[in-house]
Amino acid sequence: MGAKNVCLMTDKNLSQLPPVQMVMDSLVKNGINFKVYDNVRVEPTDRSFMEAIEFVKKGAFDAYVAVGGGSTMDTCKAANLYASSPHSDFLDYVNAPIGKGKPVSVPLKPLIAVPTTSGTGSETTGVAIFDYEHLKVKTGIASRAIKPTLGLIDPLHTLHMPDRVVANSGFDVLCHALESYTALPYHMRSPCPSNPITRPAYQGSNPISDIWAVHALRIVAKYLKRAVRNPDDLEARSNMHLASAFAGIGFGNAGVHLCHGMSYPISGLVKTYKAKDYNVDHPLVPHGLSVVLTSPAVFTFTAQMSPERHLETAEILGAHTRTARIADAGPILADTLRKFLYDLDVDDGLAAIGYSKADIPALVKGTLPQERVTKLAPRPQSEEDLSALFEASMKLY
Amino acid sequence: MGAKNVCLMTDKNLSQLPPVQMVMDSLVKNGINFKVYDNVRVEPTDRSFMEAIEFVKKGAFDAYVAVGGGSTMDTCKAANLYASSPHSDFLDYVNAPIGKGKPVSVPLKPLIAVPTTSGTGSETTGVAIFDYEHLKVKTGIASRAIKPTLGLIDPLHTLHMPDRVVANSGFDVLCHALESYTALPYHMRSPCPSNPITRPAYQGSNPISDIWAVHALRIVAKYLKRAVRNPDDLEARSNMHLASAFAGIGFGNAGVHLCHGMSYPISGLVKTYKAKDYNVDHPLVPHGLSVVLTSPAVFTFTAQMSPERHLETAEILGAHTRTARIADAGPILADTLRKFLYDLDVDDGLAAIGYSKADIPALVKGTLPQERVTKLAPRPQSEEDLSALFEASMKLY
Repeated sequence: MGAKNVCLMTDKNLSQLPPVQMVMDSLVKNGINFKVYDNVRVEPTDRSFMEAIEFVKKGAFDAYVAVGGGSTMDTCKAANLYASSPHSDFLDYVNAPIGKGKPVSVPLKPLIAVPTTSGTGSETTGVAIFDYEHLKVKTGIASRAIKPTLGLIDPLHTLHMPDRVVANSGFDVLCHALESYTALPYHMRSPCPSNPITRPAYQGSNPISDIWAVHALRIVAKYLKRAVRNPDDLEARSNMHLASAFAGIGFGNAGVHLCHGMSYPISGLVKTYKAKDYNVDHPLVPHGLSVVLTSPAVFTFTAQMSPERHLETAEILGAHTRTARIADAGPILADTLRKFLYDLDVDDGLAAIGYSKADIPALVKGTLPQERVTKLAPRPQSEEDLSALFEASMKLY
Repeated sequence: MGAKNVCLMTDKNLSQLPPVQMVMDSLVKNGINFKVYDNVRVEPTDRSFMEAIEFVKKGAFDAYVAVGGGSTMDTCKAANLYASSPHSDFLDYVNAPIGKGKPVSVPLKPLIAVPTTSGTGSETTGVAIFDYEHLKVKTGIASRAIKPTLGLIDPLHTLHMPDRVVANSGFDVLCHALESYTALPYHMRSPCPSNPITRPAYQGSNPISDIWAVHALRIVAKYLKRAVRNPDDLEARSNMHLASAFAGIGFGNAGVHLCHGMSYPISGLVKTYKAKDYNVDHPLVPHGLSVVLTSPAVFTFTAQMSPERHLETAEILGAHTRTARIADAGPILADTLRKFLYDLDVDDGLAAIGYSKADIPALVKGTLPQERVTKLAPRPQSEEDLSALFEASMKLY
């Protein structure tokens, strides 16, 4: 890449750990100038994005290396974008309706993404997600242009992950796979674009994304519990690290739908919940947890649109579906998911992370702007439907 | 792509058929100048490549559209390459040891590949294969640089295929999948390159190529027989058309090994065999047939290196392997393949297409220069081994 002045982006926890050290050693050994930005916020906000953007604008960097989880990779994508387009307002590239959703036409610098969690698949996607603090809601930037140039998927970087981080990031993989496999098929989206090139980054499920989704799901079914329970199980952690990338290639192309759309207010409106194993100074619902808590309700709701796919995924996750009735696909998948989550010690629904019925209107309101993903749900949903889904997710077991 | 002067490449049979007509109509409708080259030879030779190269050198084309099977797409890749590098000798880019195997550093023009058979996956690969007439052996050009810019995989283009063309091209998919899945793993190739970027196009099996191989194989198992037997079975033909591309993405990255390496002299040394359903004026062993005839012998030979994968593929192809002994993986897969081929009316081995024991030394001699692929076999092979494999392939049933 001919880089001479690199920005190495990471967060404060990781900056002391081997993955970052290894990158710094390599840059030093190869005589490449670099500066470290380790002020990435876990679950970034517009403010934390803008701090990173200010930093990189001053640095005149010709390449980026992001070492961390989705928060770091997404922050780095945004920093690369706005440094390459210095006169843009922050909202210019943010997804509509919150931002202007302008297409990216400027060339960006190379970005090497080195994931250290096994969940977001952010190294494979053109999406950067953040909390928009003003509205207390998550949104993002979505453009093929911000996709990293290269992902380095090294499982040795995952051995430091504490067990809740493995579990929660694994739930993100699980939902990426399930949502992209059940998303509205690409040829059923409307309006139909006049030319395939104008399809959005999230174009709906398709024969290519299906392959990645199913394969990632098989790995989750086989390896997630092992990866959580034993930090030394390199086979399990390696496979989950690959599954994260595989699911990312799938959903980065097909999109996600309701679990993700509903998760954004679930994390955005967090009150006091502090997740175990996350060393941060603010209340936090980890992304993967906020996504997975609604999954039993969501797939009960969507099953009627593609019951075969819902049954197939239940089978992959361990259900015996040979004698199942197709009409029961939703409850069967939901029940399979509940068992899976129970085995992995997941909090008992939204109530367990601090929400009550009284919060449902705000949660629904926070979901409505997530059209980019909710429109990809195979079944259209009214505000009443969303209310019912949040209510059904208050308690899981 | 901003193309203003397009070369439309095809063969004489297709030039009268709807897929080519459709491309011409589109070019006319969009006011784009084009010239048709329909002199592609089915199973091309260095001479037929050079004729195409001479044609395009005169045309100053700024883009290419190849409509046809592997022969057409490969001819077009070579034409694009040598027109972009007009002072190169033909052997400069041909694989060593027959050619010089020089890396491609010139920029090529965009090439849109529109496959009309479901086998080669050439629309996805950086490989162009031809008969080197002087040595009566197949060889090729392999470089990421010649990979088409875009593949248009439209199953309606496959409805015109006669049944033997469907079967033989399907066997190519079958072997692409089986060979790339059982190829030497990428981290076991030697010498190990100093940098991943210097890996050859065929880098050995890896977790990404495995996904494509297994998925393509499942489609072959489910749909090939239906696609052969009923030209109107659009579901089966659509799936085989995708399988061809999927297997192509896999083997284009992992490589193939002995079935392909041994197939080149099998087609190159053809005497009088004329394949049913191929409208050509010369003796011809279709590529897929030349590849599949040795498959039972090859996988019996290679099974000991990865018996689990051999058993897994046998299971996908319909064998019941639950009680199988791992040591029997080779014979089980071979027997499964024989049944599959018998059901599809495949000629009874090399003897049925005109070879006898006396030809084996020449067949072995023609395999030896195919190191690019034979070195990817999981098990090294001596000349005696190759002799034995050809001998075991004389009769299948």
